[in-house]
Amino acid sequence: MASVPAPLARVIQELVKLPGIGEKTATRLAFHLSRAERRDVDALAGALSVLRDELRTCSLCCALAGSDPCELCGDAQRSGDVLCVVEESADLAAVERSGTFRGRYHVLGGTLAPLDGIGPDDLQIAPLLRRLADGSVRETIIATNPTTEGEATALYLARLIKPLGVRVTRIAHGLPMGGDVEYADLATLGKALEGRREM
Amino acid sequence: MASVPAPLARVIQELVKLPGIGEKTATRLAFHLSRAERRDVDALAGALSVLRDELRTCSLCCALAGSDPCELCGDAQRSGDVLCVVEESADLAAVERSGTFRGRYHVLGGTLAPLDGIGPDDLQIAPLLRRLADGSVRETIIATNPTTEGEATALYLARLIKPLGVRVTRIAHGLPMGGDVEYADLATLGKALEGRREM
Repeated sequence: MASVPAPLARVIQELVKLPGIGEKTATRLAFHLSRAERRDVDALAGALSVLRDELRTCSLCCALAGSDPCELCGDAQRSGDVLCVVEESADLAAVERSGTFRGRYHVLGGTLAPLDGIGPDDLQIAPLLRRLADGSVRETIIATNPTTEGEATALYLARLIKPLGVRVTRIAHGLPMGGDVEYADLATLGKALEGRREM
Repeated sequence: MASVPAPLARVIQELVKLPGIGEKTATRLAFHLSRAERRDVDALAGALSVLRDELRTCSLCCALAGSDPCELCGDAQRSGDVLCVVEESADLAAVERSGTFRGRYHVLGGTLAPLDGIGPDDLQIAPLLRRLADGSVRETIIATNPTTEGEATALYLARLIKPLGVRVTRIAHGLPMGGDVEYADLATLGKALEGRREM
């Protein structure tokens, strides 16, 4: 990349480390930044440089947060009797964006993956069980991904939680809205039939 | 975006200002950065924060550069008798990546666009003519984009440069390599036929 000035080349080199950003996109972004408002570039650099210092993990729900306890755990308006268990903080953000859940969350920090050496102790399962111990939670919705690991983790959690007298549910799997029956994959269509509901 | 902690929300807010990055991509990138090696995040923040201070404009070719004169203008190995005229520094980088040009460059900084109020004085045309004045340049290759503005700028430059006794050429337009005659647009196919060459 002798053709790109060194300051730009450094930006490109760092941008290509991001997921989904190849050299062409990184180059386009870097040239854009070289022409963008200086204020915007500084704002981005500033936001990035404080990101890791300002991010904490909420000691209740284990989500990435700006404060501890996080905004959601500190929100007295939210119902404490339903807990939505997700793999990552990004999943929490996605559920929250849907606007259909007003309970609280718990972030596992991943899924069980014995082949990668990730067992129950590597996930935030103990803190989850502690939260359930006082009996204030009526239901836990397991919203791990519909992958092999996500399903196995959901089953594992269900076996741990049910004996505590807490209801355990799993988010529904089926055709995505706007999806097409003709082009749906077999597993999704199977789940959609299995999970059919009375109209 | 109450669901995303404030430090992440700030990063997302800045990332969505970049071209081709929507809120979903920005969110994915921000969550990635929150989990990435701290060293990498700091390196990106650092590269961005010095970008604008370290970038200069080469006083010879008017390209974005890390030094003045830029590396290419300072490279004695490069032939000074052919000049490739491009719209932007990003175009220079693209030509340079092709590895087929060993001459020097001149960056116009845009194209003539009378409707947007961009005239010859807003482009680096005067510095270009000064570079051509001493007679050391034999040929100028006009590599502006094959758009209406790029073509008009090319014609304008040709009319200015030819009287100086300098050869003016235009990069070829035709089917892109790997392209398909069947799916080529009319203008491209027209140009490809017009620019046909003896085999």
